[in-house]
Amino acid sequence: MGVNGKVRVAVNGYGTIGKRVADAVNLQKDMCVVGVTKTKPDFEAKMAVRKGYDLYAAIPERAELFDKAGVKIKGTVDDLLSKADVVVDCSPGKVGAENKAKYEKAGVKAIFQGGEKASVAEVSFNALSCYDRALGKNFVRVVSCNTTGLTRVLYLIKENFGIKKVRATMIRRVVDPKEDKKGLVNGIMPNPITLPSHHGPDVQTVLDVDITTVAFKVPTTLMHVHSLNIVPEKDVKAEDVIEIFEEEPRILLFSEEDGFTSTAKIIEWAREVRNRYDIFENCVWRDSVSVVDGEIYLTQAIHQEAIVVPENVDAIRAVFELKSREESMEITNKSLGIGELQI
Amino acid sequence: MGVNGKVRVAVNGYGTIGKRVADAVNLQKDMCVVGVTKTKPDFEAKMAVRKGYDLYAAIPERAELFDKAGVKIKGTVDDLLSKADVVVDCSPGKVGAENKAKYEKAGVKAIFQGGEKASVAEVSFNALSCYDRALGKNFVRVVSCNTTGLTRVLYLIKENFGIKKVRATMIRRVVDPKEDKKGLVNGIMPNPITLPSHHGPDVQTVLDVDITTVAFKVPTTLMHVHSLNIVPEKDVKAEDVIEIFEEEPRILLFSEEDGFTSTAKIIEWAREVRNRYDIFENCVWRDSVSVVDGEIYLTQAIHQEAIVVPENVDAIRAVFELKSREESMEITNKSLGIGELQI
Amino acid sequence: MGVNGKVRVAVNGYGTIGKRVADAVNLQKDMCVVGVTKTKPDFEAKMAVRKGYDLYAAIPERAELFDKAGVKIKGTVDDLLSKADVVVDCSPGKVGAENKAKYEKAGVKAIFQGGEKASVAEVSFNALSCYDRALGKNFVRVVSCNTTGLTRVLYLIKENFGIKKVRATMIRRVVDPKEDKKGLVNGIMPNPITLPSHHGPDVQTVLDVDITTVAFKVPTTLMHVHSLNIVPEKDVKAEDVIEIFEEEPRILLFSEEDGFTSTAKIIEWAREVRNRYDIFENCVWRDSVSVVDGEIYLTQAIHQEAIVVPENVDAIRAVFELKSREESMEITNKSLGIGELQI
Amino acid sequence: MGVNGKVRVAVNGYGTIGKRVADAVNLQKDMCVVGVTKTKPDFEAKMAVRKGYDLYAAIPERAELFDKAGVKIKGTVDDLLSKADVVVDCSPGKVGAENKAKYEKAGVKAIFQGGEKASVAEVSFNALSCYDRALGKNFVRVVSCNTTGLTRVLYLIKENFGIKKVRATMIRRVVDPKEDKKGLVNGIMPNPITLPSHHGPDVQTVLDVDITTVAFKVPTTLMHVHSLNIVPEKDVKAEDVIEIFEEEPRILLFSEEDGFTSTAKIIEWAREVRNRYDIFENCVWRDSVSVVDGEIYLTQAIHQEAIVVPENVDAIRAVFELKSREESMEITNKSLGIGELQI
Repeated sequence: MGVNGKVRVAVNGYGTIGKRVADAVNLQKDMCVVGVTKTKPDFEAKMAVRKGYDLYAAIPERAELFDKAGVKIKGTVDDLLSKADVVVDCSPGKVGAENKAKYEKAGVKAIFQGGEKASVAEVSFNALSCYDRALGKNFVRVVSCNTTGLTRVLYLIKENFGIKKVRATMIRRVVDPKEDKKGLVNGIMPNPITLPSHHGPDVQTVLDVDITTVAFKVPTTLMHVHSLNIVPEKDVKAEDVIEIFEEEPRILLFSEEDGFTSTAKIIEWAREVRNRYDIFENCVWRDSVSVVDGEIYLTQAIHQEAIVVPENVDAIRAVFELKSREESMEITNKSLGIGELQI
Repeated sequence: MGVNGKVRVAVNGYGTIGKRVADAVNLQKDMCVVGVTKTKPDFEAKMAVRKGYDLYAAIPERAELFDKAGVKIKGTVDDLLSKADVVVDCSPGKVGAENKAKYEKAGVKAIFQGGEKASVAEVSFNALSCYDRALGKNFVRVVSCNTTGLTRVLYLIKENFGIKKVRATMIRRVVDPKEDKKGLVNGIMPNPITLPSHHGPDVQTVLDVDITTVAFKVPTTLMHVHSLNIVPEKDVKAEDVIEIFEEEPRILLFSEEDGFTSTAKIIEWAREVRNRYDIFENCVWRDSVSVVDGEIYLTQAIHQEAIVVPENVDAIRAVFELKSREESMEITNKSLGIGELQI
Repeated sequence: MGVNGKVRVAVNGYGTIGKRVADAVNLQKDMCVVGVTKTKPDFEAKMAVRKGYDLYAAIPERAELFDKAGVKIKGTVDDLLSKADVVVDCSPGKVGAENKAKYEKAGVKAIFQGGEKASVAEVSFNALSCYDRALGKNFVRVVSCNTTGLTRVLYLIKENFGIKKVRATMIRRVVDPKEDKKGLVNGIMPNPITLPSHHGPDVQTVLDVDITTVAFKVPTTLMHVHSLNIVPEKDVKAEDVIEIFEEEPRILLFSEEDGFTSTAKIIEWAREVRNRYDIFENCVWRDSVSVVDGEIYLTQAIHQEAIVVPENVDAIRAVFELKSREESMEITNKSLGIGELQI
Repeated sequence: MGVNGKVRVAVNGYGTIGKRVADAVNLQKDMCVVGVTKTKPDFEAKMAVRKGYDLYAAIPERAELFDKAGVKIKGTVDDLLSKADVVVDCSPGKVGAENKAKYEKAGVKAIFQGGEKASVAEVSFNALSCYDRALGKNFVRVVSCNTTGLTRVLYLIKENFGIKKVRATMIRRVVDPKEDKKGLVNGIMPNPITLPSHHGPDVQTVLDVDITTVAFKVPTTLMHVHSLNIVPEKDVKAEDVIEIFEEEPRILLFSEEDGFTSTAKIIEWAREVRNRYDIFENCVWRDSVSVVDGEIYLTQAIHQEAIVVPENVDAIRAVFELKSREESMEITNKSLGIGELQI
């Protein structure tokens, strides 16, 4: 399989998630990017070429747009699929489902993102909570940024203390930083208004837990924030929770005394330590972790652009059964600098 | 007492809350504004004069600033207090406590706002939950906008269904619309970071309920939003909750099908029906009221500039024992248009 | 013509502009609203009914949506046109042009808004600069909020001092306050990027002046701001410019010493004095008016939701030749409170 | 002088500018950072230590705060100055002037930032326009981000085409991305209101040009934007201007067809190519460069956090007369990647 024994990965949709997944895949020794696609020859497409990625037109009919713009492509998405063992579908929500037939026809495995319905794939995926379930599968869905963020902390708490019930309020950044046409400029939007939100059932695709969720959109671009109430089965102290978080590389703890008063400060810090200020880890405020009447409360921030990147890499390993969960997560972590940061 | 039997009310601090309280007091038949104070002769001071309020310098040493700016004042706050039966202290948080000695010396009763500590007054006040407690008192604190908003819905649910536990996440507008120097421009701020927040204990100053709260600031100016989880003692259906809300004039219900998708839409509506788009009522999203596993979930928006206004009027009536709770609330409601709106 | 000699006005599109025009028309003695249209039965539609306007479906096929929502309509836009002498088209940009055939067929005059191309109408319109040009016409376009704001000050300066050249930089609010899906959340957008912008030629449809414009969108909802450089033909002092502005009711002057430090403060003031905080006047910062090397500089804020409202009323009078420019503007001003405000 | 012939540089104030200057200095072969200061032991202080910088307490009395927080310091600012040949003062505006006596006493040269008045230093500095003026001086002020951005383009245009007059409107980001307490949330603020603004005279400290400026603050954190009108002495075409910009490494040209529709897109691009998305260059929209009636119009964006960094490095070389202007700029450019980027 692959090139020099490496899994050949196609990235369909070199946008916010796609460009991060491509870079992460190329940091691994057991996989490599054979090409990426774009729908139009904009600066992201040019950047892909400059970084050395082979570029393909995501929409075959638009191939000539690239020629006109002087952006070299190697063909269309169909050409790319013929060279790949697996495609990471990073197209906008719901478009992945439309692409599925194409992937089936090309005989490639596919990793979908959380913007797709769970039914697009055989299994939904989170590395910590259900890596093994994806072993050998052909179609896997990495759950969304919010679901990934929820699942990581809930998995750890469930494994250690059991969980009776989770109540989560999610305060979501309305658009990504690069967006300049959509948004909410001044206001708060319950989204959805009818409760509970779909995020709870989405967590349940990767973790068996009783969870009820509420979600809002607010006018910021940087990170989502989750306000969590978790009822554990066992007696637990805040320190116990902090301790298990400290041991998990995919969770970072931030303290108010260090000046981390908002998501703006966390991003300021990330600009110093990570390319594109990508934070692959959950950002939990250490001071927020508390236990009231036996219930755990905590606040975490989630970098929506980056958090699913390590999960995509792990998902590729899982579908080809390259490594065990522990091995894959450790390799991925090391390659991305996860677990090395001290704050 | 007072002028023609009317309680003579001084408003110390004609700002966001003060100007609204002054207008509301002047709509009542049993009380009247004898004067308002400002710290400087800005457009709000000029507006007070134009509306016919007697203006006084809040800081005696600054009286000449008003002369220089050509804004007529009738004296200083001390002069004003000598003409009043009660002062509504609408100065910025913590300044009210500093003013208390002055009020005691002048022998006037005082209504403080929620920015002060509970200990500033004999009792904390919410009309629905504890009107009678303020009867005849000299120093009363009307709780803050967030606490007022929480207390109204919790009181109604407690009275009707009992409450075992409340978990509230509050998403707060970072500054009022008129503010142009402070704020959070892009980010989400846990505020406080250490949990639980002070809002829970503040509710407990006016309602006996087990409540744990978490609060955030987000970059918007229009309204706060509360995401509530309430565990009732009795079995309850969403319709039951909606029904009791429909019966309470100080609560308004908004539906998604009418286009109320965010606080921006609620304010757009209020601009049509209320002076300064003041919404004295809790704004509950009808579609959000739901019951999951016996627990009530609901989302409400709170117009932080206006919601405490009716409570201040009621508090004045209470301290002079002018009316019963039911009578006062009805009079206040009628005067402010509360209960008349259909959406 | 009309009802009791009043011109019968239909408002096609009861949205941001339409609802303001409807209310303004109804304040006049020589015209009245015979009905308004909406595309869907949302809260704005319900508000129209509650205010007493006869409601019609803007899109005939959607009439039953109103029935389902329990919102009473009197028919469709075609029914409405049959009862009107003139229609004020307040539909979204470019839709007005599509509606024109309908208006021609119904034999009604039509007032279009500035979102349409100038070619939609016989003449473009601004009350101060070219009222007479619209006399007796059938199709008139009231220019956009930005163009109206520019034209008023430029007309006055041209009449009094002559104008050699205008250079304008416009900093536009990205969306209206009620919008919650579109926007720019964090950034500045040159719009258009290619210079000069279309605003200059648009001014030239109503005022003969040499003008070059540049425009940007920024993340705010309240008001546009214009930074103007005007080269007059005559020698002029800042006081001279201020004096002519003081004499024109449709221009208001705001001073920094009164606390008007930003558009946020102007709106705070307007909330006290105007329904929906509508500001029909140009808001010029008095302190900004200055002359450097013979060139005038000034900064003004424009309330995009309201500024064209008086112009629409005047345009109706012009097309029916009801009054002269001076008479119409005076009547309109008086009805809307323009010229009465002191700051 | 210095260590191994390297100029020993102290950075007083390791904040937004200081941390960038420190990193840039350390990339040079002829200078090195001997230490940086912080006023408190927050995450930026910890980051400085982790990067290997010797940390000193900027305020001697607060030294023990660092001990308590477990952040190792090497002493106070006075200790640091004794080891340095030059200090780059990156303290907040006006604090630099207070520090000057300390620098004089320590016998070190000092580079101040643009937040200080011009009188703090012997000369104000911009590498392109007046490098030689700083040769051998002891106290030099690098002008502010806005002034640096203006000076670079105006210098080039003046050198090539002459300049009769410049009119600039500056739309400024209200706060930096890391700020979470100050700001303008919804509104536009003329700043200053009285025209012209101070930015024109500030440009004149480094370039002899007739310039009038107007400035605003808007609710964004990413970049400033300048709308420029430049009257050249010679006849000029847009292509001529673009050509001279293309030849200057410290200016980058961005095209709309590549998708650069706003500052949000420029930053998205910078996140791919630069640490902390620092853009040391002026970002000129290629499509905006135009000539109307012989006058040049153009729009540029300025990354306020980064643009003065190369100028600080060049200023150090100038005061020690290490290199000529051309040599210094070339070395600085190469070390920072300026001139290598293609878009």
